Amino acid sequence: MKSDLETAVLPEEIQALREETKPTYRAVSPELEEILYKPFPVLDHGFVRVVDYMGDDSAIVQAARVSYGKGTKKVSEDKGLIQYLMRHRHTTPFEMCEIKFHIKLPIFVAREWVRHRTANINEYSARYSILDREFYTPSPDVLGKQSLVNRQGRGEILNPEETEKVLHLLKRDASQCYDTYENLLNEKEGCTVFKPGELGLARELARINLPVNAYTQWYWKIDLHNLFHFLSLRADPYAQHEIQVYAKTMLDIVQKWVPNACEAFTEYRLKGRSVSGKGLAAIKRMLAGESVTAESIGMSGREWRELMDVLGRPEK
Amino acid sequence: MKSDLETAVLPEEIQALREETKPTYRAVSPELEEILYKPFPVLDHGFVRVVDYMGDDSAIVQAARVSYGKGTKKVSEDKGLIQYLMRHRHTTPFEMCEIKFHIKLPIFVAREWVRHRTANINEYSARYSILDREFYTPSPDVLGKQSLVNRQGRGEILNPEETEKVLHLLKRDASQCYDTYENLLNEKEGCTVFKPGELGLARELARINLPVNAYTQWYWKIDLHNLFHFLSLRADPYAQHEIQVYAKTMLDIVQKWVPNACEAFTEYRLKGRSVSGKGLAAIKRMLAGESVTAESIGMSGREWRELMDVLGRPEK
Amino acid sequence: MKSDLETAVLPEEIQALREETKPTYRAVSPELEEILYKPFPVLDHGFVRVVDYMGDDSAIVQAARVSYGKGTKKVSEDKGLIQYLMRHRHTTPFEMCEIKFHIKLPIFVAREWVRHRTANINEYSARYSILDREFYTPSPDVLGKQSLVNRQGRGEILNPEETEKVLHLLKRDASQCYDTYENLLNEKEGCTVFKPGELGLARELARINLPVNAYTQWYWKIDLHNLFHFLSLRADPYAQHEIQVYAKTMLDIVQKWVPNACEAFTEYRLKGRSVSGKGLAAIKRMLAGESVTAESIGMSGREWRELMDVLGRPEK
Amino acid sequence: MKSDLETAVLPEEIQALREETKPTYRAVSPELEEILYKPFPVLDHGFVRVVDYMGDDSAIVQAARVSYGKGTKKVSEDKGLIQYLMRHRHTTPFEMCEIKFHIKLPIFVAREWVRHRTANINEYSARYSILDREFYTPSPDVLGKQSLVNRQGRGEILNPEETEKVLHLLKRDASQCYDTYENLLNEKEGCTVFKPGELGLARELARINLPVNAYTQWYWKIDLHNLFHFLSLRADPYAQHEIQVYAKTMLDIVQKWVPNACEAFTEYRLKGRSVSGKGLAAIKRMLAGESVTAESIGMSGREWRELMDVLGRPEK
Repeated sequence: MKSDLETAVLPEEIQALREETKPTYRAVSPELEEILYKPFPVLDHGFVRVVDYMGDDSAIVQAARVSYGKGTKKVSEDKGLIQYLMRHRHTTPFEMCEIKFHIKLPIFVAREWVRHRTANINEYSARYSILDREFYTPSPDVLGKQSLVNRQGRGEILNPEETEKVLHLLKRDASQCYDTYENLLNEKEGCTVFKPGELGLARELARINLPVNAYTQWYWKIDLHNLFHFLSLRADPYAQHEIQVYAKTMLDIVQKWVPNACEAFTEYRLKGRSVSGKGLAAIKRMLAGESVTAESIGMSGREWRELMDVLGRPEK
Repeated sequence: MKSDLETAVLPEEIQALREETKPTYRAVSPELEEILYKPFPVLDHGFVRVVDYMGDDSAIVQAARVSYGKGTKKVSEDKGLIQYLMRHRHTTPFEMCEIKFHIKLPIFVAREWVRHRTANINEYSARYSILDREFYTPSPDVLGKQSLVNRQGRGEILNPEETEKVLHLLKRDASQCYDTYENLLNEKEGCTVFKPGELGLARELARINLPVNAYTQWYWKIDLHNLFHFLSLRADPYAQHEIQVYAKTMLDIVQKWVPNACEAFTEYRLKGRSVSGKGLAAIKRMLAGESVTAESIGMSGREWRELMDVLGRPEK
Repeated sequence: MKSDLETAVLPEEIQALREETKPTYRAVSPELEEILYKPFPVLDHGFVRVVDYMGDDSAIVQAARVSYGKGTKKVSEDKGLIQYLMRHRHTTPFEMCEIKFHIKLPIFVAREWVRHRTANINEYSARYSILDREFYTPSPDVLGKQSLVNRQGRGEILNPEETEKVLHLLKRDASQCYDTYENLLNEKEGCTVFKPGELGLARELARINLPVNAYTQWYWKIDLHNLFHFLSLRADPYAQHEIQVYAKTMLDIVQKWVPNACEAFTEYRLKGRSVSGKGLAAIKRMLAGESVTAESIGMSGREWRELMDVLGRPEK
Repeated sequence: MKSDLETAVLPEEIQALREETKPTYRAVSPELEEILYKPFPVLDHGFVRVVDYMGDDSAIVQAARVSYGKGTKKVSEDKGLIQYLMRHRHTTPFEMCEIKFHIKLPIFVAREWVRHRTANINEYSARYSILDREFYTPSPDVLGKQSLVNRQGRGEILNPEETEKVLHLLKRDASQCYDTYENLLNEKEGCTVFKPGELGLARELARINLPVNAYTQWYWKIDLHNLFHFLSLRADPYAQHEIQVYAKTMLDIVQKWVPNACEAFTEYRLKGRSVSGKGLAAIKRMLAGESVTAESIGMSGREWRELMDVLGRPEK
């Protein structure tokens, strides 16, 4: 792990950035300052680290109070206000905090990530520079067979023999593709092998031979509201495992940054659920002691099972 | 002026926020720190002040270097790189800086302002709280007649007599509207007159009687690229005077914050011009000593005059 | 009403646009075609009309099937798929439909409206043209006193005497402001009074005297996903009445356009509710026959009342 | 080519969609109707086809006239107005047109494409479905060596021997990666080889072995203003060849759809250039017969060469 992080972020650089602090009049999040610039390892070669931030829990409150003006004079303390805002989806005050991450991640994860459009990105350009020989190889405990119930999920974990076969194939192909990449590039600097006089294909063409488990990296900047939206979808158990682990690492970081907002987000978004009109009608009837079925409430079997799942009731 | 600023931002609050600094590992802009939280007066009751920021000139360079990777090792120094990025419209590195303003402004200015959608806003809510008795009254030197050449601009300045009449009417109507507003609200707290037992109309209704020169305020957060876009349109001489003065105040602030980026913006955007295909053809022919006319180049008269204006040539 | 609609959209124009159809290979929504261009009156002088649209229910299904590829061959019929997408917040297929409205609305409503940023707008410019003498005056049945429980809401309706007073004041001030507006403009065309030789203030300045209950108009174009988000917030009983009536008119229109999507939206968004982690725990315990209180579940009194309200239980 | 298009869009489907027209009151673009749904081949297996659109040239004019209100009664004809809007960057009327494409493209092109965030996307999901055995192999005439002057560009074209070697390697690796992909999937339906009893890795994992020259496909919907921005960057000679060919195909399509807007875009954007403050000063001095140098105008050598290039003057 260590050597990979070093490839992308030299410990000396981080140490230099953390050598001395400067004074600021801005809001400061002490817990986030402690980890600023430090990479948190994710997957086999990836990482997440915070390189800058703006605001803290109090910035959310401050923005909300601009909206409410003098009317908020009597409003209870900050934590309660943040919970109120989260509960009632008053989202704009959460947009007043901003965070910037440096992230190293496999290309196929990056492809899911960019579907979240309200963020700023600067990505490493393989048109311009040479990518490192780094590929994501899943650890054996997440190598799952195709799920039979969820078309886009994993089921049973492979046995050791199958695992060995899969890892062998993935490594073999990645290795061969990278060998070809270097062979095509044939650059004196940046390639391990260099044959003078032979071709040096344009970088923007040579890179098309790399698989989507190759690692890329980027700066990603986003406001807290949109980050919460990202986390609600990507820290979810239905998200692909490889993006989930990034989301969970970032959730831990957000917890250090804005603890009150993060607690409210966990309670009202992550642990909360949407219940449909029919779902509410079913709950009301059940609370009134009535016996309710999918048919009597007008739900499909699938929808009924989803409701029973939310209510923690065994399917019948 | 003083008392109005006090209404919105108490000097004690600002002093408290500037009482002591905290240490941070983040990038710090020393010149911006010096003015953080301090209001800059704009128009008769408005202001602009910075309440938070993220990044500085070096953050732009750092983001650009992530994109270019090892390839940038030999790139010349930061200022040249920033100019290169601006010249070639590589806009994403400028998105990596963020700034948050607290702004007090007339409603009709706010209405133009929100056309810039890529920003975060928390505005004072007149549904929730009571607006102050503050209205924009133009100063005599900007009271212009309807322009005859520009349908959305001002021409000749009014004479003193006309000025007096206009100001009298604007003040009279604003004053009467606000009196009615208070009369409708009839709240014990927040209104200068209160008649127990009489009606207190809902705030969200009473406010519909206020004119668009009433002042509102908001927190407005935006990244540097989108701020430059805002400034290029609103610091432009064709923008309405009342939004121009805000844009110019903000341009001065940006100059303190990111001096290199601001210099590049001024040179390549504010002082620069777009020239069309035909315009370029005309310039090339003129440089070759040919005589060119609107007809010979296939331009309309209006377009030709615009080109001559860009080239600083007297219209013929 | 008729005459106001005529001011903005001449019946002849609408008739001309509806004179003849043209053939298209695109998806067509027959029910929406029937009302295309026709204004639906809202408030005293406003309206909503559809001027263009793209896609229908089948466009949502088609887009979802691109994502799922061959995997969806066996998926049940369209309506079920749309409900599934809505229930699981798979929002991108709904972005594949687009609609363009022409809307006439009071400025204070327009100010709330633009907080929805993911939309395209072309608004009537009072810098460029003269606004009509049209102001929103509430009808007596919506003239409410300030709510005592909701700081941004209305309570008890005014009595006839109070109503008369309020309407008198609103009309008087609007009328005086518009008289001044015309007086300042003093244009030969467009003003009812014109005094040759007297001042004609620039339009962009004269308009600052108009109250926020003056009517403006715009073209507003938005995709279906973002429109649903708008409707979920603005057709909500907590939205200000004056924007609610626009949202409800648009909801009726959407019902004609994409009936399946609209039904799913109504069931899963409008009639649905979010329940927090603690709320779900409370429901589970109640269903298990336990007695639960705000204290035992760790909720504030306010949050508990909100939950009881969702469950249709009388507060204790 | 034919067979690949058939993989993604069956000719029967297209024929069915074009079997009969329906009547509409909406704006119709006759030239676009003629090609609706029909795929235009791009690269070796890709295509672009229009699946829906909203508006035409007249929709731009109509939206602009809402803004200008009665003031535009005398405005010259539509084409001139569109040119005026484009020249003065009045961008919102162009947002009033919308188009939806179905595009098949290599993953590495898709990765550049999504940097344009103001668009709606539904992409084929390889978590859900199986990708076809289709990979981009460059044609020999675009196989360039690394450029020596442009770090992200191509220089000299390879000789036949080098070409053969490159194509051999690219095909070999793509083929092996796809074999492994099928081997890992081992699905009865969708794979050419199926071994009962052996592993069937989750699709979301098996796909990580595919190279970025594999083809994906998506629906991509965007408004005309943002499409023009995309085209100005991607139809540019500095864009990577493989995205340029898509942009150029789309430009031809836009030409059929909104001929006036497309002509204005070509003249003022594609053929136009930005000139900096110093650049304008240099031109003015040159027009006045002065001799100007990089030093005398305060430009770097690079910037001066860029200016000379714009002015079509040989570098000195």
